Amino acid sequence: MNNNELLARRYRAMSQYAPLFYDKPIHIVKGEGVWLYDADGKKYLDMYNNVPTVGHCHPYVVKRITEQVQTLNVHTRYLHETIIDYSERLLSTFDESLNMLVMTCTGSESNDIAIRMAREHTGKMGVICTDDAYHGNTTVVDEIATQFHQGQVKGCNVKSIPTPDSYRPLEGLTGKALGLAYANKVKQAIDEFNAEGTGLAAMLICPILANESLPEIPEQFIKLAAKHVRDAGGLVIFDEVQAGFGRTGCMWGHEQTGVVPDIVTLGKPMGNGHPVAGVVSSAKLMDEFRSRTEYFNTFGGNPVSAAAALAVLDVIENEGLIGNVQHIGSYLRAELNKLKIKHSLIGDIRQRGLFIVVDLVLDTESKEPAPQAAHFIVESMKSQGILLSKTGVARNALKMRPPLVFSKDNADQALYALDNALNELKTQG
Amino acid sequence: MNNNELLARRYRAMSQYAPLFYDKPIHIVKGEGVWLYDADGKKYLDMYNNVPTVGHCHPYVVKRITEQVQTLNVHTRYLHETIIDYSERLLSTFDESLNMLVMTCTGSESNDIAIRMAREHTGKMGVICTDDAYHGNTTVVDEIATQFHQGQVKGCNVKSIPTPDSYRPLEGLTGKALGLAYANKVKQAIDEFNAEGTGLAAMLICPILANESLPEIPEQFIKLAAKHVRDAGGLVIFDEVQAGFGRTGCMWGHEQTGVVPDIVTLGKPMGNGHPVAGVVSSAKLMDEFRSRTEYFNTFGGNPVSAAAALAVLDVIENEGLIGNVQHIGSYLRAELNKLKIKHSLIGDIRQRGLFIVVDLVLDTESKEPAPQAAHFIVESMKSQGILLSKTGVARNALKMRPPLVFSKDNADQALYALDNALNELKTQG
Repeated sequence: MNNNELLARRYRAMSQYAPLFYDKPIHIVKGEGVWLYDADGKKYLDMYNNVPTVGHCHPYVVKRITEQVQTLNVHTRYLHETIIDYSERLLSTFDESLNMLVMTCTGSESNDIAIRMAREHTGKMGVICTDDAYHGNTTVVDEIATQFHQGQVKGCNVKSIPTPDSYRPLEGLTGKALGLAYANKVKQAIDEFNAEGTGLAAMLICPILANESLPEIPEQFIKLAAKHVRDAGGLVIFDEVQAGFGRTGCMWGHEQTGVVPDIVTLGKPMGNGHPVAGVVSSAKLMDEFRSRTEYFNTFGGNPVSAAAALAVLDVIENEGLIGNVQHIGSYLRAELNKLKIKHSLIGDIRQRGLFIVVDLVLDTESKEPAPQAAHFIVESMKSQGILLSKTGVARNALKMRPPLVFSKDNADQALYALDNALNELKTQG
Repeated sequence: MNNNELLARRYRAMSQYAPLFYDKPIHIVKGEGVWLYDADGKKYLDMYNNVPTVGHCHPYVVKRITEQVQTLNVHTRYLHETIIDYSERLLSTFDESLNMLVMTCTGSESNDIAIRMAREHTGKMGVICTDDAYHGNTTVVDEIATQFHQGQVKGCNVKSIPTPDSYRPLEGLTGKALGLAYANKVKQAIDEFNAEGTGLAAMLICPILANESLPEIPEQFIKLAAKHVRDAGGLVIFDEVQAGFGRTGCMWGHEQTGVVPDIVTLGKPMGNGHPVAGVVSSAKLMDEFRSRTEYFNTFGGNPVSAAAALAVLDVIENEGLIGNVQHIGSYLRAELNKLKIKHSLIGDIRQRGLFIVVDLVLDTESKEPAPQAAHFIVESMKSQGILLSKTGVARNALKMRPPLVFSKDNADQALYALDNALNELKTQG
């Protein structure tokens, strides 16, 4: 069956509005390590997918899922050792104040529960996020998906602050003054919540602002913002759905913020594609939430999900992937800096481990976003057999988040293709 | 490691309030068909678990998951044939007006999206459910989990009606008058929503009222209630998370209601334990929702989830499970009726296919619930090697929902043990 027929069937059964990548979607049939293969046998280097984090179809993860799915798969109202082993192992990677885990199935569920926990704890409703946030898609989490509601009314329980950004900074400020200015926006939102009688439940942010296109976060912002939140009785929730599990070259994205959050939410790479996610907090918060709500998640933490998640931790450790992330991430950044000198379209390069954003601009002074160029490059990279994507509210930045097993050879192939695409764009004028 | 040590570790890492079954929890390590095995090798007949619907670790489902997990597991923004095959196959089992599917990971996500769809469509916020409902645990779905919020304020967007029930009927009514009386409660809730300016988005109910302890639904209630809802511009959402996929002896629980809903939500048995769920609606509603919201679910409908779900449909069909459900369900009901004559503790037997509820009462006239007896029997059955559970707001009813592969021999073993437990209770006075 060719792609047009498949597409027509998909439109009929799933809606033409179900999102698809590329001008002409690709029909992927096989994955292995950093590679994806389409139905015609064409091979793609995967620089996009952050979910299959230890590589597509990693044999050890596949083995553990296969063993468990043929042995037992039930819920957590019977005792089972794997979820306990996993919980202990995962929690040992956090600050000791973060010592309980509840497992869910998606990052959306995790952020939804984190908000429930914060509202239960504070008795208040207000949630602070950024202007360009995305944290998932349940009703309540969608309210803080401000990236998709630009200019729309946010409802009385949500306030967003301008995305903290050192490249296109607030009021042209720099250094510590810039961090202070953004933190003051948080203080202002808290004051408004209090004046309106809503009160503050939490600030929910990604500690690397992944969906806000990974800006370099102004100095001290997170520390100062967290202090304002806590002074007002609110909780600090860090969404580690994208930042976590070694992506940044640390186990957790928040390790370098100097802030230990009250709640951490987990998702995407946790099971290398298996639907598993979770929420970590102190025992006090977790006991409070669970005793008051009788929370139970039918699929959450089942033996297969726990086995998949445990296998991912094993692979990250056994294959030294965090070291690889640091090594290849630095190499990519250095090589991209060379391309930046060559191509004035590259306005800014932002990199945290193997999460890399290349901000394309029409003019390096005005920093006017270049969304058409980004689109051209994404399509050109695809035709050269490399998958990446766009980010940023203006859709002008290239987003690269390859599996953590990405090698120097893989990086060289991608850099070569990117240079080609940028040259091709120049030629086209 | 013994259960006490395991339990202590679980309490530390997951909270003592994470729900567990039985006075002394059991440590299950293996499942096969209708059987579960604990760490000491004790074998239990599973009459409780409705998720592993085609039997624990069904070899064909295991095979399909194993094949797919080692081949490819990515999201739906690339083309993939299995989710399309599954969508077409699943949709062919519904009325032709229900012709689009969006896949999610949990029943909670499905009900949350269904509410979002209804609110998008109507521009109104109000949701009607029953007094004893449970539909999941996201913030918004928890608001309609009225079973866990008895006597609490429901918030301005939720109204619940007394659970339609022929055994403990409203105002002592019977027959069509009873159905009419409950439907009038729906009308009254709509009028209140309108008077308050909230307006009606939807009525969300399970078509067999599974979590309301499966009452015999008064004649015409669902038809009349659906008419009131539609006359007011609202949508009818049927939660088939428990009722669906053959459990009742029909493919869908709503088939015998005479009402085609606007939205159907799916979950639990859909992937035999794999975290997969979905929402079915008309193309018009789905297009409207997806185009307005850019809804995307990272894990929803991935190739492994789709393969697991497709395998479940295959097994239901190839093994003639719906016929088995009808056959064994009727047999169990007939045999339970014999026990009812023998044991006055049995007040009412309610059965839809292989979903059976035995309502225990202290007195058959007053119908006063007997929760202690229910607790005793659940524990006695466990010690006899049979797993079932309790239901009902008073926790006085036995809940039985075995895998659909349950045989006559399995039924006889369970009936024998239940007779024993009832006799034992009599002896104890």
